[in-house]
Amino acid sequence: MNNNIKIAICGYGNLGKGVEKAIAKNSDMDLVAIFTRRDPGELCTEGTAAIVPIEEAEEWRAVVDVVIMCGGSATDLPEQVPVFASMFNTVDSFDTHARIPEHFKNVDDAARKSGKTSIISVGWDPGLFSKNRLEIDSILPDSNIYTFWGKGVSQGHSDAIRRVDGVKDARQYTIPVESAMQSVRNGENPKLSTREKHTRECFVVAEKGADEYKITSNIVTMPNYFADYDTTVHFISEEELKAEHSGIPHGGSVIGCGETGEGNKQVVEYSLKLDSNPEFTSSVLIAYARAAYRMNKAGQHGAKTVFDVSPAMLSNKTQEEMLKML
Amino acid sequence: MNNNIKIAICGYGNLGKGVEKAIAKNSDMDLVAIFTRRDPGELCTEGTAAIVPIEEAEEWRAVVDVVIMCGGSATDLPEQVPVFASMFNTVDSFDTHARIPEHFKNVDDAARKSGKTSIISVGWDPGLFSKNRLEIDSILPDSNIYTFWGKGVSQGHSDAIRRVDGVKDARQYTIPVESAMQSVRNGENPKLSTREKHTRECFVVAEKGADEYKITSNIVTMPNYFADYDTTVHFISEEELKAEHSGIPHGGSVIGCGETGEGNKQVVEYSLKLDSNPEFTSSVLIAYARAAYRMNKAGQHGAKTVFDVSPAMLSNKTQEEMLKML
Repeated sequence: MNNNIKIAICGYGNLGKGVEKAIAKNSDMDLVAIFTRRDPGELCTEGTAAIVPIEEAEEWRAVVDVVIMCGGSATDLPEQVPVFASMFNTVDSFDTHARIPEHFKNVDDAARKSGKTSIISVGWDPGLFSKNRLEIDSILPDSNIYTFWGKGVSQGHSDAIRRVDGVKDARQYTIPVESAMQSVRNGENPKLSTREKHTRECFVVAEKGADEYKITSNIVTMPNYFADYDTTVHFISEEELKAEHSGIPHGGSVIGCGETGEGNKQVVEYSLKLDSNPEFTSSVLIAYARAAYRMNKAGQHGAKTVFDVSPAMLSNKTQEEMLKML
Repeated sequence: MNNNIKIAICGYGNLGKGVEKAIAKNSDMDLVAIFTRRDPGELCTEGTAAIVPIEEAEEWRAVVDVVIMCGGSATDLPEQVPVFASMFNTVDSFDTHARIPEHFKNVDDAARKSGKTSIISVGWDPGLFSKNRLEIDSILPDSNIYTFWGKGVSQGHSDAIRRVDGVKDARQYTIPVESAMQSVRNGENPKLSTREKHTRECFVVAEKGADEYKITSNIVTMPNYFADYDTTVHFISEEELKAEHSGIPHGGSVIGCGETGEGNKQVVEYSLKLDSNPEFTSSVLIAYARAAYRMNKAGQHGAKTVFDVSPAMLSNKTQEEMLKML
């Protein structure tokens, strides 16, 4: 065995597969196990990591340094992370904003008892975007900070369309309004309604004989998901959906504008343009897994967020190499 | 006395004045002293901070929590910071890239002996840009990372022009090449020479009777400063220089592009558009002064860089408020 950080994945969906692919690019880490609820024989993985039934994870305590939790936020992560934090250092991408304080507390209790380190809500939003919002607020305390998402696929909104009567399949794109972004970049500090910030574009495969007019009406008036937005619905064939809309791109921008001195505008922008949302999130999770391992070694136990992690903890560079990068 | 962090400034130029203006926006801090080499009677400051001859700074050890070092990188900071680090927590904006390891060592030796915390090379580059370069490298280890500066005033290049025979005053703008930036943003990973990344534009006030052709030739062929760039020289009147070019804007972008999975491009960009370069740098220094104070309380002594500072250390928000910002 080398001295590399030993990583395990819990959950082998888009995110878990992304972690598996990306970990090879990090020379200080090895993927040693994949914990799954499925029959291990069913899993077709890429590398040499052991495929382990989730209930046997405990047997890997002595081997695994960090478990990257790749389940969903709705039900998997709130249940699984506290359990795993009682045995392992963990990193997760929990993103149900309203429930983050509760998740933090549950994970913190478990990780403090076990002397482990668990970094929660890692990814790009929550995650890198949150960090940039906090940093802009710290540097320019009276600034206005805006977040725009897209152009990108929203899984939740695509699922909502699929539940509409007569819909066979669908893909929804969230699109930021370019003129609104430009106004923010110009330091105009606009007041923007939900409708003025983003539009929604839907590509729908209708079932044979379905009423397209009715489907459109049911989508654009759907409360919470579409009613507050200008929404466009396109009907396309199943083949076209597969050919043109099978990627999972996403991205967005955090833009802050504050003033210093006598009316000097200072604009800070952080943007992502991602061909694959889950693969980028996986890459972020891997860097924070490195941090979880190191923070645990340094005695920083309990639940942590991206706000608690210094840039050096994320990096595989030596102190000397980092000083050169300043 | 309240419980606020007590700040002192060392050096009252553009940067020191920026700190004085911005500190009022941070409710957890007070500016208590300005250390100066000039005759204190000569200084016309804005607030109620004591104006103290620099050689009497030591008498303020018991009062001041952090000194923000606002001298120049050429001679002031390499001499002053180690001396001040032997008495106070400090933050500085040392930006002579080649000498950063040496500066780090000198400050580290002094700060470890005194049990103080000194964060060096804080600002936007080195500083926020460095942090973003390191973070992109940590998340996308095989990415190409580009830095573009401008449009903005380069003080060093303006000074170089002022030393040319026949030049009365000058202002130089560094301008990024838009098509090069766009190519990087598109994930094309271009190979870019110095000339292909930036152009330089000079506004020059010539002395009466000076040979404008000769001045232009001396500027555009100047080694290190201009010879490797496409440089434009405009001759204007003193009045025009004052009216149109008295601001100190700057900015730039760090753009990284990496691949994940099967050729999925992931582009990360961090950009600044600053009306006032020194005022923004001052605001960054203030946030890191907060961090220096807290890291010292937490027993993290010695020299530090932006890489060692977690986002939470910079923020005046409570843990509860931060969790909401995720």
